[in-house]
Amino acid sequence: MITKRVGLGILGLGNIGSGTYKVLEQNRDHIETVTGLDLRITGILEIDQDRDRGFTVPPYLFKKDPEIIFSDPGTDIVIELLGGTEPATTFMVNAMNAGKSVVTANKAALAENYELLTETAVKNGVELRFEASVGGGIPIIGAIRDHLAANEFTEMLGILNGTTNYILTKMTESGRSYEDALAEAQKLGFAEADPASDIEGRDVAHKLSILMSLVFGKRVKPHEIPTTGISNITEQDINEAEAEGCVIKLLASAFRSEGGIECFIQPTFLNKSHPLADVRNEYNALYIKGSAVGDLMLYGKGAGPYPTASAVLGDVITIARKI
Amino acid sequence: MITKRVGLGILGLGNIGSGTYKVLEQNRDHIETVTGLDLRITGILEIDQDRDRGFTVPPYLFKKDPEIIFSDPGTDIVIELLGGTEPATTFMVNAMNAGKSVVTANKAALAENYELLTETAVKNGVELRFEASVGGGIPIIGAIRDHLAANEFTEMLGILNGTTNYILTKMTESGRSYEDALAEAQKLGFAEADPASDIEGRDVAHKLSILMSLVFGKRVKPHEIPTTGISNITEQDINEAEAEGCVIKLLASAFRSEGGIECFIQPTFLNKSHPLADVRNEYNALYIKGSAVGDLMLYGKGAGPYPTASAVLGDVITIARKI
Repeated sequence: MITKRVGLGILGLGNIGSGTYKVLEQNRDHIETVTGLDLRITGILEIDQDRDRGFTVPPYLFKKDPEIIFSDPGTDIVIELLGGTEPATTFMVNAMNAGKSVVTANKAALAENYELLTETAVKNGVELRFEASVGGGIPIIGAIRDHLAANEFTEMLGILNGTTNYILTKMTESGRSYEDALAEAQKLGFAEADPASDIEGRDVAHKLSILMSLVFGKRVKPHEIPTTGISNITEQDINEAEAEGCVIKLLASAFRSEGGIECFIQPTFLNKSHPLADVRNEYNALYIKGSAVGDLMLYGKGAGPYPTASAVLGDVITIARKI
Repeated sequence: MITKRVGLGILGLGNIGSGTYKVLEQNRDHIETVTGLDLRITGILEIDQDRDRGFTVPPYLFKKDPEIIFSDPGTDIVIELLGGTEPATTFMVNAMNAGKSVVTANKAALAENYELLTETAVKNGVELRFEASVGGGIPIIGAIRDHLAANEFTEMLGILNGTTNYILTKMTESGRSYEDALAEAQKLGFAEADPASDIEGRDVAHKLSILMSLVFGKRVKPHEIPTTGISNITEQDINEAEAEGCVIKLLASAFRSEGGIECFIQPTFLNKSHPLADVRNEYNALYIKGSAVGDLMLYGKGAGPYPTASAVLGDVITIARKI
């Protein structure tokens, strides 16, 4: 097999960017053996060049102006890992307008600007892939977009936030209070110091918004999705669920009904026989029904630098194979 | 979006071929809307033209000589659904030598002739995809090959046969004898009249052979895999597993050890806390550990005309998008 060199520009070298850099460097030989691709970083947009990341980045890779990366003919794919809606959206649009394909993990930018970003990709004849934006390392987006593309989907249920699933699992299995379980999640790094976005379901709303576009072709902005978080769940609720043979899960739900396609996010009594009932701790899963495939579940780690890097590099490899 | 017409030749219009034909015709508009692809059947190799399949095939599509399909410039992709090692392998090689990409559901041909088939694809610069050969509609092959390609894999456990999983589930949950459970599976269509290939693990050996090549880059022919089926499992075994907090599953196992990469198939006591322990009845699942993604499980229907058609058409769409 003849090796093909593909140039990568990276926007942002925070936790996810550093994880992606490390996985790429550590698995470089393996990736080349399996795929025939020599993935080379050609530039990194990052202000903080001095932070201790546990590895050394050649200083010449750091660029202060993203346009230097977008105009580099040696760069084929731009990996956007800045997070947040702006300037990430503008940078992705500029990269695609400059003829670069884009891989992103950015759920906020996609949920807010889905049409703009996907249409910019089509207009320029480049690829936009975003596996890492929903469910971390679980190949949800790729499965729906590629392998299940012959299906019409009727129903979708997701556990798409590890923080809330960890807290609910501890409340269910160890009888902990909500406050105790949250404190433990924070101690173990499964919840942030300010956990509001996770706890109140806003993180899930971004992911469900992206899935609604992809699975049902329906645009719903995150703030338009009826959303209830888990902060009011009590030990009594947990016990009531148990008495009914159920567990409480924070579910992102979407289904076709007579009135069209509905979606919402709320803590739900889920029968213990349902495949999602066994998704415990920080794990995520998507359960989906397709007209041909029947019901399907994809399960794994929905967050963290390495699972996210796995998804980012999977997208990079998928695009690079076609170049 | 401009629609792109892609021509499909189908080899074999049995159960899987008929399911693929039906899903393609029923979902034609949906597929075109979502993918921009107009998938057109250009020829079908099938001797039995008169069988009642529940739909009408235009007679001019039936061809008696596969070479007519391979030499048709209007055919882009050949879908091989004959099953069995020969003449399927020869037909696939001839199709690829004629410049056609190939999609197949044929586990036997792939397990026996993996190098020949994959090398013929590379030599001719065409694609060979085989999602349907392992785990029916579950996107196992695509996930490993595309979305998880940045990972090195350390361990893999699979429930890859619906017949045996159905029988073991009924023995476990309803206290049925092996003979009773097998009879029920046959009555419901989950086991064939001659169930030997499923029961003795030979069906799983074909699938594990394909996964060994793909996941670990190691060729092991099906007959070289140490294989024990489920026909000797007794109600006492089931009870012993229960007493130890386990369930018995027929597992296809592979892992890296000091001596290299080992694999085998055998009924296994699996702790009830393992994600695979909840895979019940005719469902299949693959549990796999990757260096970046961590542990991951893909779960769904591992057989049947429609789930298989979902996988076949997913491969067709993946290839057609690149044409």
